[in-house]
Amino acid sequence: MGSTFGHVFRVTTFGESHGGAVGVVVDGCPPRLALNEADLQRDLDRRRPGQSSVTTPRAEADRAHIVSGTFEGQTLGSPIAIVVWNEDARPEAYASFKDRYRPSHADFTYEAKYGIRNWQGGGRASARETIGRVAAGAIAKKILAERFGTEILAYVKRVHGIEAAIDSARVKFSDVESNIVRCPDRKAAARMIALIERMRDDGDSVGGVIECVARGVPPGLGDPVFDKLEADLAKGVLSLPATKGFEIGSGFDGTRLRGSEHNDPFTVVRGRVRTKSNFSGGVQGGISNGEDVVVRVGFKPTATIRKKQETADVRGRRATIAASGRHDPCVLPRAVPMVEAMVALVLVDHHLRHEAQCGTPPRTPRARSRRASR
Amino acid sequence: MGSTFGHVFRVTTFGESHGGAVGVVVDGCPPRLALNEADLQRDLDRRRPGQSSVTTPRAEADRAHIVSGTFEGQTLGSPIAIVVWNEDARPEAYASFKDRYRPSHADFTYEAKYGIRNWQGGGRASARETIGRVAAGAIAKKILAERFGTEILAYVKRVHGIEAAIDSARVKFSDVESNIVRCPDRKAAARMIALIERMRDDGDSVGGVIECVARGVPPGLGDPVFDKLEADLAKGVLSLPATKGFEIGSGFDGTRLRGSEHNDPFTVVRGRVRTKSNFSGGVQGGISNGEDVVVRVGFKPTATIRKKQETADVRGRRATIAASGRHDPCVLPRAVPMVEAMVALVLVDHHLRHEAQCGTPPRTPRARSRRASR
Amino acid sequence: MGSTFGHVFRVTTFGESHGGAVGVVVDGCPPRLALNEADLQRDLDRRRPGQSSVTTPRAEADRAHIVSGTFEGQTLGSPIAIVVWNEDARPEAYASFKDRYRPSHADFTYEAKYGIRNWQGGGRASARETIGRVAAGAIAKKILAERFGTEILAYVKRVHGIEAAIDSARVKFSDVESNIVRCPDRKAAARMIALIERMRDDGDSVGGVIECVARGVPPGLGDPVFDKLEADLAKGVLSLPATKGFEIGSGFDGTRLRGSEHNDPFTVVRGRVRTKSNFSGGVQGGISNGEDVVVRVGFKPTATIRKKQETADVRGRRATIAASGRHDPCVLPRAVPMVEAMVALVLVDHHLRHEAQCGTPPRTPRARSRRASR
Amino acid sequence: MGSTFGHVFRVTTFGESHGGAVGVVVDGCPPRLALNEADLQRDLDRRRPGQSSVTTPRAEADRAHIVSGTFEGQTLGSPIAIVVWNEDARPEAYASFKDRYRPSHADFTYEAKYGIRNWQGGGRASARETIGRVAAGAIAKKILAERFGTEILAYVKRVHGIEAAIDSARVKFSDVESNIVRCPDRKAAARMIALIERMRDDGDSVGGVIECVARGVPPGLGDPVFDKLEADLAKGVLSLPATKGFEIGSGFDGTRLRGSEHNDPFTVVRGRVRTKSNFSGGVQGGISNGEDVVVRVGFKPTATIRKKQETADVRGRRATIAASGRHDPCVLPRAVPMVEAMVALVLVDHHLRHEAQCGTPPRTPRARSRRASR
Repeated sequence: MGSTFGHVFRVTTFGESHGGAVGVVVDGCPPRLALNEADLQRDLDRRRPGQSSVTTPRAEADRAHIVSGTFEGQTLGSPIAIVVWNEDARPEAYASFKDRYRPSHADFTYEAKYGIRNWQGGGRASARETIGRVAAGAIAKKILAERFGTEILAYVKRVHGIEAAIDSARVKFSDVESNIVRCPDRKAAARMIALIERMRDDGDSVGGVIECVARGVPPGLGDPVFDKLEADLAKGVLSLPATKGFEIGSGFDGTRLRGSEHNDPFTVVRGRVRTKSNFSGGVQGGISNGEDVVVRVGFKPTATIRKKQETADVRGRRATIAASGRHDPCVLPRAVPMVEAMVALVLVDHHLRHEAQCGTPPRTPRARSRRASR
Repeated sequence: MGSTFGHVFRVTTFGESHGGAVGVVVDGCPPRLALNEADLQRDLDRRRPGQSSVTTPRAEADRAHIVSGTFEGQTLGSPIAIVVWNEDARPEAYASFKDRYRPSHADFTYEAKYGIRNWQGGGRASARETIGRVAAGAIAKKILAERFGTEILAYVKRVHGIEAAIDSARVKFSDVESNIVRCPDRKAAARMIALIERMRDDGDSVGGVIECVARGVPPGLGDPVFDKLEADLAKGVLSLPATKGFEIGSGFDGTRLRGSEHNDPFTVVRGRVRTKSNFSGGVQGGISNGEDVVVRVGFKPTATIRKKQETADVRGRRATIAASGRHDPCVLPRAVPMVEAMVALVLVDHHLRHEAQCGTPPRTPRARSRRASR
Repeated sequence: MGSTFGHVFRVTTFGESHGGAVGVVVDGCPPRLALNEADLQRDLDRRRPGQSSVTTPRAEADRAHIVSGTFEGQTLGSPIAIVVWNEDARPEAYASFKDRYRPSHADFTYEAKYGIRNWQGGGRASARETIGRVAAGAIAKKILAERFGTEILAYVKRVHGIEAAIDSARVKFSDVESNIVRCPDRKAAARMIALIERMRDDGDSVGGVIECVARGVPPGLGDPVFDKLEADLAKGVLSLPATKGFEIGSGFDGTRLRGSEHNDPFTVVRGRVRTKSNFSGGVQGGISNGEDVVVRVGFKPTATIRKKQETADVRGRRATIAASGRHDPCVLPRAVPMVEAMVALVLVDHHLRHEAQCGTPPRTPRARSRRASR
Repeated sequence: MGSTFGHVFRVTTFGESHGGAVGVVVDGCPPRLALNEADLQRDLDRRRPGQSSVTTPRAEADRAHIVSGTFEGQTLGSPIAIVVWNEDARPEAYASFKDRYRPSHADFTYEAKYGIRNWQGGGRASARETIGRVAAGAIAKKILAERFGTEILAYVKRVHGIEAAIDSARVKFSDVESNIVRCPDRKAAARMIALIERMRDDGDSVGGVIECVARGVPPGLGDPVFDKLEADLAKGVLSLPATKGFEIGSGFDGTRLRGSEHNDPFTVVRGRVRTKSNFSGGVQGGISNGEDVVVRVGFKPTATIRKKQETADVRGRRATIAASGRHDPCVLPRAVPMVEAMVALVLVDHHLRHEAQCGTPPRTPRARSRRASR
């Protein structure tokens, strides 16, 4: 019962890696939004396997079919169902995993929880499940861009020990897409690509960090006390496969500063209350403050490696295992649109929630405060 | 509408820092659990202000009153409402904040979202709101301990640059409570206390990291794909005030390892499938694997400091501000029971969810797998 | 886990008949609504026991205490917690029910479900639980009246076989409150009062039907396909104690008409699309159409009677029982504000949901349709 | 955002009458349930158009495709997505409704709410949407039958003025399916069929009442105070198209009895506490009591008729309209599996919820009560 995300803009994904199809139902989408399948395909293509030398070679076109919820190119306000057929499934490649648990995969835990698992591929735990999220996220990004003027942009910030220098306030989509690793710092990108290719050849893998910035977020998004904006962002991105950590703004580094260094002083810019620094990452008290929302997500090295590993079999005996299936030596390049999708889903949901409770789109509080302070 | 947490074990908190009362309603608690007010008070006392030289001197007894949901010392299965009256409110200490936003507080964002705020104290954004969570968490911890054999233990892992050496597998509650900073490494604790006291005297503040371990967690908790265990844990703890980051298991450090170094090999110990290492932090594919669940939470330095700071007023003019109210120079000692509460709430909710869908308490999958593999 | 109602305007009640207190937490209330305790008391007084010769003599002042969520007479947007203390509890009157199940009460089923019950009074199944609903409903009615121009009015339509003649389009609050049975047809009211008093003297009870009209409802409320307006209205009122049936518009009588008789023809009145009849009861396809919403609720005769009845005891032996506690010979007069409360809660929730998804307050579709039909 | 039903066993439907497909995602289904497409088809065939002379002639095979959530004939515990393609859509038949609202249909209200509608067929308001419910209901009925020993059976109780004599305690599935109107009283059935055929020929329509009984329901299902069993049953069935009323047990007739006549005396049968009558309809205090759950649902006469009717057009002008599309002269025969589906979905959800909170399957309370009464 954990396959639905969002309170007002509600996304339900379905599908296993090697079942018939994967997809999503988006319920609560505003009506009269222009939407067609091409709007979804751009991000699905960025997520797609087989797109470059640093991704898995599994060949999937990942074509999105909208089977409900639109009419003459516009959303109806009814559920938008999107289906993507699995085409290049090769269950035989997984036969050796039927009886043996792949280390740091979900084989053992799915077996423990459900007493059954689809051992042909990763089943529901496969990154293939994220197709539905990315398709829904494309809708969410379109709403944010067209209705609220908000832009979501993620990029690879670090791979293993290779850290990129990126200005989150200025980085552009074209910079991110300028290379196959999706790191806008081209020098770092070249080194990252070289490292990932070496890992691929070694049968090993690496992880790293994706940063995501949301620009043009109005003040007022987030619902204390449990549905604070950073709490929902954390939940969203940490529900992606292979994630191990989340930070907003100054994150863990900020915990090494004093309050007098870390507080963001307020100032006034063109009549609007702004902060001079952004250690807060655009969120204060669980509510957006109008500055850029900046989050970072840590991804572990891909669990699937070709090297031989110790494991146990389903009869409770020690065994060894070595992957032969297709896999990504580093998940980060393909995870960039996944992170964007989750951030977009959270922001759209909170936009709509804000309008529900507060009756107006979020806006800067200056005008009102004047009255309030009389 | 963000004041409810949990899907089956549902917690709704209420109350402002300087309103009449704070509290919580716990709906979905199993019936026939022995419960009285003393069960709640231990953790409320650990959270209480004024408990030591490193906490705010605000004098609140924080006595919990159970006003519904129990009968003759047992839970009824109906909602348990718990009320704690605010006693030592001093709204006059906050008069200067009526018109000026405290930097890195929620004053500005609440004003932006709701167009109104209770400027007497932090209102709903005050850490005082966590009283309800801690009371509910005490119930959750009791259920985990008595029914499921699970122990939750949090402690201060780092303050500013002072890092403690702690073995999460062996640390004991009495070690945590042996000093006022709640760091079981006594040498580090002494240095932390000295630093916090210096900050207090300087009118400044520091942050740090709290680690929390859950021991005795069965395999099977967590609901892919959105309600993965780590996703819900992250949401839970990042909904606490002053948090900036979350990690599970190897966390961000793990992103610097290769897959061959990071994967947790399976082995078999006394007939039970176990992992030899625990980089996964007890969760794989969003579901607990029976190992210790280990998470870390980054807390920023307290926003309230006595030093003079730049800010803006509610009329949109630049101004300066300096806190005179009572506050914690470091929130971590009091945040320890808050983190435990959120982890406990997530685990209980997933225990009950597991029984709902799978019809049995979670258990190790060995027996079943034998059958399955025939 | 069934004590929360509503998706955006969320109401959580707590409290047993003979515990310390009953009350409610309202989360998601719009901010900056003028609200004080007197706003709640009017409806609580209409619900209060001991108000007349046709109600139970239990003496409860039922004073509402708002303990959070307001500041200087306005709502903050944070949870509004309301507490009412139980004062005239007389557990000793229930001692004989400790071991015997009262027929058609919830004693047996609570015991079956939870394995425990508060036998002192009806516990959670007591109509006393509805205090929280009525208080929350008073807030909802205030929002509907002040922000959306919607008026909710319920009244007794039938007691036992005595049916009143009432024009739902014109009936006024003062008519309803003109007599103790809350039936605006004064002749019928007099007969109803006489009948109820006879039942009271006989130690017996009667039921009947309450009708509720919502006037000034805009078109557009309701969320197909599961959260249709009539579906949520039915759930709301059938969650009240003692209810056995629900109808909207033509209800069961309408099932005896032909389509050509039952369809509501559209017409145009002052440029606005209206229906000439209202068999639909103001809802078509699960969405309000701008006409009056009219629903009826059937209440069974009160289960508590003084006459001797057959029953079983908790050891599974046959027994007899006769109530000696205080009770209502007919619940309808006090149930009128309860029905209004549930209808108001549903309408407010759907108003806010509509704004969430559709971004604007509901309005008549004329203007838009012109454009759409080009 | 109203397309999801259930709290633990969660059903999300999608699809318009004339879009590409309709279907459902079932999340939270217990794992290891034997399930294949044939299990769904039986009820889909009972719901299918074109099945007899008393239903619409639209020719749809309504073949269910399970595209996720099963593996080797068993459920995985992951979301089960089911897709049914629309094949015999004839949008041209609806061209005249593009600009004119069909009376007592959802055309006007969808336009009012969303500012857009799919005028080709009933869109989301079409009974075609119920395909997803019926498929999900088939899964729910399978769980109830196999795991909990509960049987759900609905049948036509009345058409227009023709009332059938049926013993809800003894009626069998084969009786219901013995004729095309699904009324187990064969004499009444013959008269109903004749009436519906006359209505069909007249271009008119009739409504009526469906009764549904659930046998073998254990005591303990239902979650006071808002999610009482009858409240959720009412919501479920009143979310079906064309419904106008709901009753449980004695229903509206029961409101004409005295308490001394209406109360169900308890007795003891073979050591188990039972009631001698069942005016309660199997539910007391919102919780099942182990007796048969009996509900009735009123369906209005089909809104689509061939007779000429007054209406308004989308420009706000008066107009006339007469349906030429295919439609059912009486919806009841095809609505029987829809009612069963909704009742089954509610019961399964409450079964799983009960296990979540109470930790055990529901059971008769006798044993426990012995202990409790010591």
